[in-house]
Amino acid sequence: MEELRIPGPTPCPPEVLQAMARQMINHRGEEFQGILMGVTDNLKQLFQTKNDLYILTASGTGGLEAAIVNVLSPDDKVLSVSIGAFGDRFATMAERFGAEVTRLSFEWGKPADPDEVRRALQKDSKIKAVLVTHNETSTGVTNDLGAISLVVKEFNKLLLVDAISSLGSINLPVDEWHCDIAVTGSQKGWMVPPGLAMISVSQDAWQAYAESKMPRFYWDIGQAKSYLERNQTPWTPAVSVVFALAVSLEMILKEGLAEIVARHARVAQCAREGVKSLGLSLFADEDFASNTVTAVDSTNGLDPKKLLQVLREKHQIVLGGGQQKLDGRIFRIGHLGWVNESDIEKVITALKVALPEAGFVAAR
Amino acid sequence: MEELRIPGPTPCPPEVLQAMARQMINHRGEEFQGILMGVTDNLKQLFQTKNDLYILTASGTGGLEAAIVNVLSPDDKVLSVSIGAFGDRFATMAERFGAEVTRLSFEWGKPADPDEVRRALQKDSKIKAVLVTHNETSTGVTNDLGAISLVVKEFNKLLLVDAISSLGSINLPVDEWHCDIAVTGSQKGWMVPPGLAMISVSQDAWQAYAESKMPRFYWDIGQAKSYLERNQTPWTPAVSVVFALAVSLEMILKEGLAEIVARHARVAQCAREGVKSLGLSLFADEDFASNTVTAVDSTNGLDPKKLLQVLREKHQIVLGGGQQKLDGRIFRIGHLGWVNESDIEKVITALKVALPEAGFVAAR
Repeated sequence: MEELRIPGPTPCPPEVLQAMARQMINHRGEEFQGILMGVTDNLKQLFQTKNDLYILTASGTGGLEAAIVNVLSPDDKVLSVSIGAFGDRFATMAERFGAEVTRLSFEWGKPADPDEVRRALQKDSKIKAVLVTHNETSTGVTNDLGAISLVVKEFNKLLLVDAISSLGSINLPVDEWHCDIAVTGSQKGWMVPPGLAMISVSQDAWQAYAESKMPRFYWDIGQAKSYLERNQTPWTPAVSVVFALAVSLEMILKEGLAEIVARHARVAQCAREGVKSLGLSLFADEDFASNTVTAVDSTNGLDPKKLLQVLREKHQIVLGGGQQKLDGRIFRIGHLGWVNESDIEKVITALKVALPEAGFVAAR
Repeated sequence: MEELRIPGPTPCPPEVLQAMARQMINHRGEEFQGILMGVTDNLKQLFQTKNDLYILTASGTGGLEAAIVNVLSPDDKVLSVSIGAFGDRFATMAERFGAEVTRLSFEWGKPADPDEVRRALQKDSKIKAVLVTHNETSTGVTNDLGAISLVVKEFNKLLLVDAISSLGSINLPVDEWHCDIAVTGSQKGWMVPPGLAMISVSQDAWQAYAESKMPRFYWDIGQAKSYLERNQTPWTPAVSVVFALAVSLEMILKEGLAEIVARHARVAQCAREGVKSLGLSLFADEDFASNTVTAVDSTNGLDPKKLLQVLREKHQIVLGGGQQKLDGRIFRIGHLGWVNESDIEKVITALKVALPEAGFVAAR
């Protein structure tokens, strides 16, 4: 069995996999309705929100599209705060649906600077919403979302958050930080296979929804709301993934969110210390290094693609590569969901053996 | 264990459920790439097509939205041929994205009349595409898609087909019938849990795509094409459902499409005869009665909601109710995918006992 240490899909505990194997039931019947409502309530607790919350059958990207088409209109001005590939993609998505996007981009590996967000908002009073990635999976950087939110709310703008690889693993109090929309995906910290996106919707987002003119049908949260009042989803959901999520959420609540956040911090610390002990450098600004994914720079002759191959073939460990302009420049260790320190120690031990085979020469 | 006889989700064979329980692997790694390409090739065979084919992480509704936003532009004229709730919904979807839809609606329970389709196309030469439901799940009627296609192609229009509850169960030769887009969903005849939509795309559809101006990102088949050239999907797919589909497609190919189509015809015949033998009436025009779902009228004092409750509680059999204007007027027996005659005989036996408890008095 391979050890999967990419930033999603993440390995699933046996109890979760067993739930995936459950026979189908009527998705509009009483039993499934009970499961759906339980999952929704538990997710609200873990989003730390009293907002509405909906489960969509889609990958996380679908959840982000839902965020955009439900609150914006074509020609709306939007500020995109991007620190990597997923931030850029969120902006592109808004553009495709006709929004006028101002792109505030930061150097990859660095977090967003809240003061620059303030200056961008001061410059253009017509901006309606701000798009932010909480945890940028492509660079291994976590934004200071609390600080960014304070700025966004100084100006009373809508805050749409890509929390795909943070929610459930890194502290994100959705209500305290006034996230109007927060989106995550089942295959990240939730320890469940891909297939579901989860999206929370604030009262202000509902007000924007009422005025929004982007076309929508599948992603329409108005439909989701009206069906959830009858304990259902508008379209046939990925029933098995809902079964699995019901099980994983019980496990998560039993461990406790605070403990899970602390475990992710410990595991990430272990990854960063381990990587540095081998003479490697972190790609991310260490003060903002992510607790769910560690990006490692390719210094000292290291060929990251060769390294991933050696780890896979000789050590049965699967890590992630770099994306877009970081392709061939970094590698990434995913450590979110069902993971502890000993899993990371195995990765570090394997890295120690594999690095020289991938061209790496430790500095003396 | 309940017997699930609704028109989707359908029961899954044990081998398929076992595949659902597989641990996650890298969705961009070599092994998954092999599985994805195998599934795509097998699906093409079962769609009887050489067209491109893509797997989307969504319910069938998402696949229909993909059909619309990839080939149409706002203000495009579209002819909707509707024979029930799902046909109406397909039209509504096109309207939401700005198409100008002419609705050609037929009495529920009847199929579409190809001559009326011809008259509608003669009346308005600006129509660009025709939306048709192959098998209308809400009424249990299968359209004569071959005949409708001949008419649509007389006029050289694009043919977009909702084949969600027919493909893989009822004969639908996508190339022979010139379907520019055909859409199905994993939880129907494919014997797999919900979570995936499958969509085929003809060369003419690609030409329309090049000119199409509806906004899209998640559903963009251009992205799907470019990633499939690297044996991948653009966004993280529902990995487990792909695993399951790989297994079910092997089972389907082993049984053989012709034999599966014949089995569905036999099973449906068994359902229709059984229902009539109890003194019940079919809702659908019997010449066009569906081989995947049988809709039964509520005559002779029958309360269909009460009937479903009695069947569920006392016989552990789950049937479907009526939708929209048929709510409380019909009940539906789903018989698609993993089903044979003895499954239907069990339903008929239970119906015989349950009917009098639901107010039904057989005519003497």
